[in-house]
Amino acid sequence: MSEDRGDIQALIAQIARLPGLGPRSARRIVLHLIRKRAGQMSQLASLMAEVAENSRECAICGNISDQTVCAICEDARRATGEICVVTDVADLWALERGRAFHGRYHVLGGSLSALDEIGPDDLRIPALIARISDEHVTEVILALAATVEGQTTAHYIAEALAPTGVTVTGLAQGVPIGGELDYLDDGTITAALRARRRL
Amino acid sequence: MSEDRGDIQALIAQIARLPGLGPRSARRIVLHLIRKRAGQMSQLASLMAEVAENSRECAICGNISDQTVCAICEDARRATGEICVVTDVADLWALERGRAFHGRYHVLGGSLSALDEIGPDDLRIPALIARISDEHVTEVILALAATVEGQTTAHYIAEALAPTGVTVTGLAQGVPIGGELDYLDDGTITAALRARRRL
Repeated sequence: MSEDRGDIQALIAQIARLPGLGPRSARRIVLHLIRKRAGQMSQLASLMAEVAENSRECAICGNISDQTVCAICEDARRATGEICVVTDVADLWALERGRAFHGRYHVLGGSLSALDEIGPDDLRIPALIARISDEHVTEVILALAATVEGQTTAHYIAEALAPTGVTVTGLAQGVPIGGELDYLDDGTITAALRARRRL
Repeated sequence: MSEDRGDIQALIAQIARLPGLGPRSARRIVLHLIRKRAGQMSQLASLMAEVAENSRECAICGNISDQTVCAICEDARRATGEICVVTDVADLWALERGRAFHGRYHVLGGSLSALDEIGPDDLRIPALIARISDEHVTEVILALAATVEGQTTAHYIAEALAPTGVTVTGLAQGVPIGGELDYLDDGTITAALRARRRL
């Protein structure tokens, strides 16, 4: 295309590489931003630069924060003796949106995977074990994905924590709230049936 | 959520407002960027600030450029006497990707719409009329959408250009390349049939 569009083309290419986007949606976003350049675009650019500059992993739990230690780990009210182990910060955010958990988190940063050569030391598992005694933890809740990788990781962690004597629990599996049986996969129905409860 | 995530939350909210995105995809993008903050995120932020700072509308055709006059209008080889009128810069980009048009463009910046109170003066139509004599234009190709608004706009421009004596043409309508009749809407099939050609 025209030679003077180098920067715009580069911006489109970068945005197209973001998860869930492609060249078409990137072009649409860039055009939208250019139309509003006075306001939205410079604001977005400076906010992005600020977040890029300031955000770091919490030294204790791996959550994303603009402090060395995140607000959840700083908050004394959340020292409930429960640690919820999640794969990723996105999962931590999802649990926080639910407002049902009042303890602290531990972000693994991935799942064990022989294929991708991700071992326990890549996943902040040693740091988790260290926290058990440091923080007088009584229960570790493994809120990991109900996938093969997630469950392999959960199994590994449960084994690794066995010597500490801490209670290790996992999320219940079953029919999601509002879920119609007709639309559920067989695996979920089977799991929900196996874990059936007396009413 | 945690109080120290103000900037990140603000960034998610801004990205969620971009076309085609929402809170979920915005969270995913922001987490992806934070993970790569050293590289991709600051690069994206500075590129975005640069584009926000430098991009402007070409004074002649309305294309987006970092110069007062865009590369296409600057390029003497593109003074073919043909002007292709498009609704939007996205359409100009689409035509440039096709590499079939070698003249210059005129970006209207929208379609006529009584409902949204968009009249000819809002659409750079006077500027188009001025270009006809200024640039010795022989043909104006109306590459506008095959929608009611697009065709109303095309009709209005054709009328407005009649006194200049310039040839006004429109894109052919018909079956798209690779299009299977079975999947086409009735309007397209009807248009393609009406405009049938001897082989």
